[in-house]
Amino acid sequence: MGGARNIFTLPRPMRMYRGGCLSRVDVAYETWGELNEARDNAILLFTGLSPSAHAAASQLDPSPGWWEEMIGKDHPIDTRRYFLICVNSLGSCFGSTGPASIDPDTGKPYRLDFPVLSLEDLARSARELLRGLGIEKLSAVMGASMGGMTALAFAVKFPAMAESVVSISGAARALPFAIALRSLQREIIRSDLAWNQGDYPLGAGPIRGMQLARKLGMITYRSSKEWQMRFGRERVAEERKTGDAFAIDFEVESYMEAHARKFTGQFDPNCYLYLSRAMDLFDLGDHGGSVPAALAKVKARRALVIGVETDFLFPLFQQQEIATDLEAAGLDVTFAGLDSLQGHDAFLVDMDNFRPLIGEFLS
Amino acid sequence: MGGARNIFTLPRPMRMYRGGCLSRVDVAYETWGELNEARDNAILLFTGLSPSAHAAASQLDPSPGWWEEMIGKDHPIDTRRYFLICVNSLGSCFGSTGPASIDPDTGKPYRLDFPVLSLEDLARSARELLRGLGIEKLSAVMGASMGGMTALAFAVKFPAMAESVVSISGAARALPFAIALRSLQREIIRSDLAWNQGDYPLGAGPIRGMQLARKLGMITYRSSKEWQMRFGRERVAEERKTGDAFAIDFEVESYMEAHARKFTGQFDPNCYLYLSRAMDLFDLGDHGGSVPAALAKVKARRALVIGVETDFLFPLFQQQEIATDLEAAGLDVTFAGLDSLQGHDAFLVDMDNFRPLIGEFLS
Repeated sequence: MGGARNIFTLPRPMRMYRGGCLSRVDVAYETWGELNEARDNAILLFTGLSPSAHAAASQLDPSPGWWEEMIGKDHPIDTRRYFLICVNSLGSCFGSTGPASIDPDTGKPYRLDFPVLSLEDLARSARELLRGLGIEKLSAVMGASMGGMTALAFAVKFPAMAESVVSISGAARALPFAIALRSLQREIIRSDLAWNQGDYPLGAGPIRGMQLARKLGMITYRSSKEWQMRFGRERVAEERKTGDAFAIDFEVESYMEAHARKFTGQFDPNCYLYLSRAMDLFDLGDHGGSVPAALAKVKARRALVIGVETDFLFPLFQQQEIATDLEAAGLDVTFAGLDSLQGHDAFLVDMDNFRPLIGEFLS
Repeated sequence: MGGARNIFTLPRPMRMYRGGCLSRVDVAYETWGELNEARDNAILLFTGLSPSAHAAASQLDPSPGWWEEMIGKDHPIDTRRYFLICVNSLGSCFGSTGPASIDPDTGKPYRLDFPVLSLEDLARSARELLRGLGIEKLSAVMGASMGGMTALAFAVKFPAMAESVVSISGAARALPFAIALRSLQREIIRSDLAWNQGDYPLGAGPIRGMQLARKLGMITYRSSKEWQMRFGRERVAEERKTGDAFAIDFEVESYMEAHARKFTGQFDPNCYLYLSRAMDLFDLGDHGGSVPAALAKVKARRALVIGVETDFLFPLFQQQEIATDLEAAGLDVTFAGLDSLQGHDAFLVDMDNFRPLIGEFLS
């Protein structure tokens, strides 16, 4: 996940949306395909909370990426036609500047001295990267989950840049159910004594807290129905059981444990806290008085809005609202409410549904 | 919650459903109304995971109970007609024997030496209480949430005892989504160092872990829609904010914190772990090969099965299955799928919907 990637360093300090300033900002990114002569075939892709910029295998890093099946020759995001740029979010820990980065003013990691992070800052830092790459017009800005929110923020803040907008299981603003879940995840991490008010050895820290927060994430990223079909009431094999009455007993517990262990250690806990909070704080209504007023600013020509019926974290009605508001803003909107079983994570898993939708929109 | 109540001590040791034995079993209970001469007007009420037997104000304890609006003269459970018995679950900590009780064989609290607890044991201990009270026939056995599961276990294990069965937002067996959530709650509690492998000073222990587990419970007990209407993106007043970037900011966070603080300290953490695990282990299919085969044993005449559309912890399709299976067993079944906003907790809150349904069924 932390493999090779390009780093763009902003030419000047960046003032943050909710106050404070970063004197040096690095944005890690990867690209696929070629920028055409008109410099207008680029697609900007924002990620969810946890992935790096490594969306697919590339010359820099041949390992498979998090959206491997979506990107490449003859893939929905066809790299013979488009120049795809995926950025590691500002505030993350895979090359971009974040709470785990060294503050050049002190020579020490920012940790909790990092300024309040907003999704508007993620959009802004990507805008600066595009400027650095000599790109003033995008064919599309795109993202799923937190990336969908950030893509909308980008489209509102830089309304004339993108020809089209693709929002997948995103949100125009955080709602209290999702805020409550993320707040609890953050509290679980902060309750791990190893968090130590953010002052842990980088690469270590609140492992247990991160695992528990990850498990809560997993529960909210998939659907009850999918788990019923996959796990039912299957038990783990007898020999894997211990004498502990509260040890893992059901397959679903074993699955969560295995995935939580894979995740932790990779992602810096303070970065997680900042990005999670940035999602709660996000409200497009801050840009114009209401969400519809904010989305009315978008000057793109077309939009694709995708939601999933079984997604209870970013529910379908939120996707429908985005589509309605963009339509009211005059965009040609394609809306798809998919019946995928995989809930919020469907865009990573249910490729049979997602590939044709995105492929057709971009073709 | 731990107010006055009656205690029935089983006349002999009780063998547990999944092995082990309790040499002394107390069952705490409260009653309302009078047992008639025929001794056939009793209703047995099982509770959810956390309440005591104090379902309503009584002569023993005039403080309001957890189902106050449902019980009394001219109330849906009319105490002029019925003799209502509410039991504190075996394994709980409000008078009934549980992990926080003294093991008479050692003179010390059971803690994790308490045998594996099953909902079948809760049903069985209540059966013994009824025998002690001289009751061989119930007008109804009833419960909501874990109490609904236990009422079904009772109806299957003692098929001829109850004339009718009332199952509210219950389950015939635990499904993986609910298992995953409860497993995570238990892990959060066990990860609190103050849990100390179950060996904490009774009345103290893993307060923080219990609060976090409670918050997760609250998120799953209500609905996203309700919280959107109640809290939206409201912020706490500025003066309540602190310098901590991750402190409470949104009203929904403040609400969860206040409720979590009220809950903890009352409920013993080991008891919580045992009861939570008992729900995961529950599968009526253990009694006859499948859930329908188990429910086919029920000899009651009528059943009322209630579920709530916004309940994603005990989803409506589970309630529908219970109703279908009881109907196939020859019972006269009333099924209600309510559109209450309050999710799993609706039976405690949405009295306008629940009162008439239960009142009519019992009248």
